[in-house]
Amino acid sequence: MRKGLLFIISGPAGSGKGTVVNALLEAHPEITLSISATTRSPRPNEENGVHYHFISKEEFEKRIENGKMLEYATYNENYYGTPEKEVLEAMEAGKDVILEIEVAGAMQIKEKIKDSVAIMLTPPNKEVLEARLRGRGTETEEVIKWRLERAKEEIMLLPQYDYSVVNEDGLIDKCAEKIYKIIESEHQRTAYTKTIIEKFI
Amino acid sequence: MRKGLLFIISGPAGSGKGTVVNALLEAHPEITLSISATTRSPRPNEENGVHYHFISKEEFEKRIENGKMLEYATYNENYYGTPEKEVLEAMEAGKDVILEIEVAGAMQIKEKIKDSVAIMLTPPNKEVLEARLRGRGTETEEVIKWRLERAKEEIMLLPQYDYSVVNEDGLIDKCAEKIYKIIESEHQRTAYTKTIIEKFI
Repeated sequence: MRKGLLFIISGPAGSGKGTVVNALLEAHPEITLSISATTRSPRPNEENGVHYHFISKEEFEKRIENGKMLEYATYNENYYGTPEKEVLEAMEAGKDVILEIEVAGAMQIKEKIKDSVAIMLTPPNKEVLEARLRGRGTETEEVIKWRLERAKEEIMLLPQYDYSVVNEDGLIDKCAEKIYKIIESEHQRTAYTKTIIEKFI
Repeated sequence: MRKGLLFIISGPAGSGKGTVVNALLEAHPEITLSISATTRSPRPNEENGVHYHFISKEEFEKRIENGKMLEYATYNENYYGTPEKEVLEAMEAGKDVILEIEVAGAMQIKEKIKDSVAIMLTPPNKEVLEARLRGRGTETEEVIKWRLERAKEEIMLLPQYDYSVVNEDGLIDKCAEKIYKIIESEHQRTAYTKTIIEKFI
């Protein structure tokens, strides 16, 4: 059985990581997406175990204490994090797991799971980034400026990642396939193929 | 311009590396195959600069002395080797270069060019390896046994490579595509994509 590997797909707001990950999972449904846990309330269209694992603040804090969260962050006074158990179980079952997370969380996981593979998605340049952030049309100028600055700071962390892929406008599937090629070729690393040696003894 | 990278494709006799490399170059003619130099005489069907660079023993030894050979070996009292100039020039022109060489030479190059990517091709198991070596039908039992032993010893060096790919009988194109995925995904390494950062400053 081929070993399950962990791929962290991350990138700043405006990188389109959610859309790209959806395209990747649609084309390759054998890949497992890790579901985050959160303490915030579900929105009307959200299902427990599909969009998030909705858990209580007490349960979340207990898991942090017991080291059961691979990474976590707080946002608007709610916790968001990646439950370790689910990720490790899927990998042990031979499945590739994708974590789609924020840049700060990506760095926490890379630290904990050394052979995880960190991929940063970026927009092609700052003009496209700005157009995408403005395109949402829901935020004030101040918020847009802040998101733009934070996105730039996050992109500066690119050298800490293993791979980076540019997500061009209108080329979602191409971007998803580039990620898929990375997934496939990581499986060809001799770290995971050395059992072939046994077939020659 | 995308940076040209160096891929060493190697493997024991019976791995089918020549056939796989031909399939890869046919499907992706933008990739450059490095032509070896040799001091042996050309065979009737061989063309200088296509199959080999045919050079004199004096010229070959001068190049060794001047450090102009990336790797070399002797076989039947003739020299065989990889001229450095051609490889570096193609890479500087943004081309990916493939070296199809023996295992011993692969290790010499990996030592000299640290960011080269070494890929070992293997047969799926020892039974297929033996069938392939016998299938040539041109060698004595003694030679076959020796080649088989040497092939096994070479496969044991797999952990020193970056990637390995199994070449199954009848699946040449699939094997070539696995190598192509490795080539493509190596270009996504942050070591080669960090210039994207400049587009956000």
